[in-house]
Amino acid sequence: MRAIHMRLSSSFRPILLFDLVSSCSPPRQFSIPRRLISAAANGGGRSGSIVAAPLLTEEDFHKIDVNPPKGTRDFPPEDMRLRNWLFNHFKEVSRLYGFEEVDYPVLETEALFIRKAGEEIRDQLYCFEDRGNRRVALRPELTPSLARLVIQKGKSVSLPLKWFAVGQCWRYERMTRGRRREHYQWNMDIIGVPQVTAEAELISSIVTFFKRIGITASDVGFKVSSRKVLQELLKKYGVPEDLFGRVCIIIDKIEKIPIDEIKNELGFTGMSEDAIEQLLQVLSVKSLDDLEDILGGSGEAIADLKQLFSLAEKFGYSEWIQFDASVVRGLAYYTGIVFEGFDRKGKLRAICGGGRYDRLLSTYGGDDIPACGFGFGDAVIVELLKEKDLLPKLGQEVENIVCALDKDLQGAAATVATALRDKGQTVDLVLESKPLKWVFKRAARVNARRLVLVGKAEWEDGSVSVKVLSSGEQFQVKLSDLE
Amino acid sequence: MRAIHMRLSSSFRPILLFDLVSSCSPPRQFSIPRRLISAAANGGGRSGSIVAAPLLTEEDFHKIDVNPPKGTRDFPPEDMRLRNWLFNHFKEVSRLYGFEEVDYPVLETEALFIRKAGEEIRDQLYCFEDRGNRRVALRPELTPSLARLVIQKGKSVSLPLKWFAVGQCWRYERMTRGRRREHYQWNMDIIGVPQVTAEAELISSIVTFFKRIGITASDVGFKVSSRKVLQELLKKYGVPEDLFGRVCIIIDKIEKIPIDEIKNELGFTGMSEDAIEQLLQVLSVKSLDDLEDILGGSGEAIADLKQLFSLAEKFGYSEWIQFDASVVRGLAYYTGIVFEGFDRKGKLRAICGGGRYDRLLSTYGGDDIPACGFGFGDAVIVELLKEKDLLPKLGQEVENIVCALDKDLQGAAATVATALRDKGQTVDLVLESKPLKWVFKRAARVNARRLVLVGKAEWEDGSVSVKVLSSGEQFQVKLSDLE
Repeated sequence: MRAIHMRLSSSFRPILLFDLVSSCSPPRQFSIPRRLISAAANGGGRSGSIVAAPLLTEEDFHKIDVNPPKGTRDFPPEDMRLRNWLFNHFKEVSRLYGFEEVDYPVLETEALFIRKAGEEIRDQLYCFEDRGNRRVALRPELTPSLARLVIQKGKSVSLPLKWFAVGQCWRYERMTRGRRREHYQWNMDIIGVPQVTAEAELISSIVTFFKRIGITASDVGFKVSSRKVLQELLKKYGVPEDLFGRVCIIIDKIEKIPIDEIKNELGFTGMSEDAIEQLLQVLSVKSLDDLEDILGGSGEAIADLKQLFSLAEKFGYSEWIQFDASVVRGLAYYTGIVFEGFDRKGKLRAICGGGRYDRLLSTYGGDDIPACGFGFGDAVIVELLKEKDLLPKLGQEVENIVCALDKDLQGAAATVATALRDKGQTVDLVLESKPLKWVFKRAARVNARRLVLVGKAEWEDGSVSVKVLSSGEQFQVKLSDLE
Repeated sequence: MRAIHMRLSSSFRPILLFDLVSSCSPPRQFSIPRRLISAAANGGGRSGSIVAAPLLTEEDFHKIDVNPPKGTRDFPPEDMRLRNWLFNHFKEVSRLYGFEEVDYPVLETEALFIRKAGEEIRDQLYCFEDRGNRRVALRPELTPSLARLVIQKGKSVSLPLKWFAVGQCWRYERMTRGRRREHYQWNMDIIGVPQVTAEAELISSIVTFFKRIGITASDVGFKVSSRKVLQELLKKYGVPEDLFGRVCIIIDKIEKIPIDEIKNELGFTGMSEDAIEQLLQVLSVKSLDDLEDILGGSGEAIADLKQLFSLAEKFGYSEWIQFDASVVRGLAYYTGIVFEGFDRKGKLRAICGGGRYDRLLSTYGGDDIPACGFGFGDAVIVELLKEKDLLPKLGQEVENIVCALDKDLQGAAATVATALRDKGQTVDLVLESKPLKWVFKRAARVNARRLVLVGKAEWEDGSVSVKVLSSGEQFQVKLSDLE
């Protein structure tokens, strides 16, 4: 037996409970999670407040908080059905576009997520020191892991890669703002295509997803811009290139923090007040023609954006997208086209977002490969579906409920269930002796199509009674003939 | 902007890189993960050794370890296909049996997993202190979360619950023994059925799973016993009831550690040497009749086991199961029937295991509800499939590869791809101008069924060229007629 290595919190009394038989281990001492104590002190409620540690009795210890940790979710069957419905659409659309599914560990080394730009996602890193004193983090996003895997695979893979993933991501926020600490994110990424066709394909796949779940172009749209717009502007204003990602992060906060603070932060990058004013003015431009007037017609920014809008027409989603210079996205690594999905009523946060990140791999020591991708969370879309009354009604689905009419026939019911399952029929087998009234109630709850009753007289003949629950039709049938 | 709260490791030089523009934040200091340093010092290799921290240059920092954290896995497309294949079988079988899918957070409060018995699973808890000083853990198993959710749901759910989950579980081992730190586990649980019909149903579902993936009763079997056997014996030897779980954990290690150590540990429970010898002798019994001779015919242990073997016959899986008194399983909470799946060649660890845990809920402060379930990991089964040469050959599957023959026709190709996708056809759209040779190579790699070429002359007519790749058949067709 190995010893347990745990940190000892000196303010808590060791629980002798655990020391009963541990002759081979050193005495074990545990720190009781503060939340547990707080929950117990509050009668099991879900208070987040930290109270002074009381002396714990064995009984106190047993009063576990029945809620999942703050900011996380359980998925009981009704919620899991919705999650599966959503994820299946993510996955089916990705496959429709010829993408292959991948995944990465939810726990990564912290270093993978550390970037110099001070993004929100990085400030909220859910990080720890593990028992081996390694700095690790629950992933806040999937792209860094993708980049790591692409570098690792090196020349063994043929470009372009078209990969998708649906994975849980974590962020740690000290303040509660009604936001959760975990969400699931659908990612699609194209690695190895420098052309804007890749971004156009990605937006097309999201549009296809929206259409499938009943969302139209009058419900949501995509704001599209390019980081190259900013890049060309900053060059003009003499801002050093290595501050580019930083400036993008600042600008991404325009709608979240006061404009004076934005100006202040931009000032620290060395931009003149005048340049800042001009920059902010350009960011309010909503027409590609106006932008062309400002930047001139020769730059990559304009060319990329024009191509994207032209492709959107060919893909058939022109009405979904619009140019908006204020869109820069809050991740440091984007280098070209950026886009975000928004609800046209303007009530919700961004539904999804993505863009081109041609220089991410070199920040990890790999050779750069042109790449773009998007992230699409599972939270805002569900809010939108709720708002539009488009949430699907999903019940349990079972074809048969099989029940013995006699305790002695439970084995026979098992035989019937097995025969049906062998034919690919789903069966909820009643495992106890229950009154028929109970069985009908259960059949209704699990939405069973048929009730199959195993009674003594019929069974002696190898037959069962079948009741089709929608029609009330009832008949006897040999088990071998039951389809 | 909020400050970042991170622990400062004084042995590392702060990286100025991060302090470029952080006027609003306090100076940021980071500890560089030791593994990263070690990896860099070893030329990027995957050494676990901890070396003295060198002074880091910005360049060093960028050399990220491209491997996933020690003991964890990436799932590139080929591995993800196998994972999906396996999980789909888990899920389809569960639904065939009328079970509903659920899930819980991968991160739980540590308290949920702390039990007094000193199980291996508990000693290997992957636990941390989070940034809010809460003790949290990556779940080592799913059952405690299930119990938490059942207590939380209380009277709002109708029993029995039949729930399944496929979730990632974690363990922290200091020593590497070729074992991973994470695995996925399929769980099926029945909450609210006191009868052995529930255990019989669970084993039936695993048998169905095995059959579906090509595993037969000559490849694997189930060893079955009941914790009540031990309970009745311990009562006879005067061992206090609250040491029961502890004794089970000790006995579970019989095949893993020397018998003298087992005897020693049992001695600490207060059992006499004589009683220990008798106990160990009973554990070697492999026949229910012999057990009945020892225990007498009136106890619950014998009755439960007899009923299970009788039901197995009705379910049709008698040849898969055998009585074996030595099976007790390594989790403290089991109270009745316990079982484990094993490979008949005896080369592998247990493939799966489960049993009845009628008293788990009260250990968390809830009212007890009879329950049973099993856990089935994703590691050993894959080893077994490999050994039997039963691993499926899974390639990417795409119906069409669509390619423009001319750079100017990339928009047209997008139109063609959209039309096909609208008809539910999967399309890998070639996003760059590539030579035909490249396109054929890619078509072969993605196992495309058809190659759809968009050429100038045909497209002016609204047509495309189609080549069926299996037959070599080639034809022109109007896009609107392309099915």
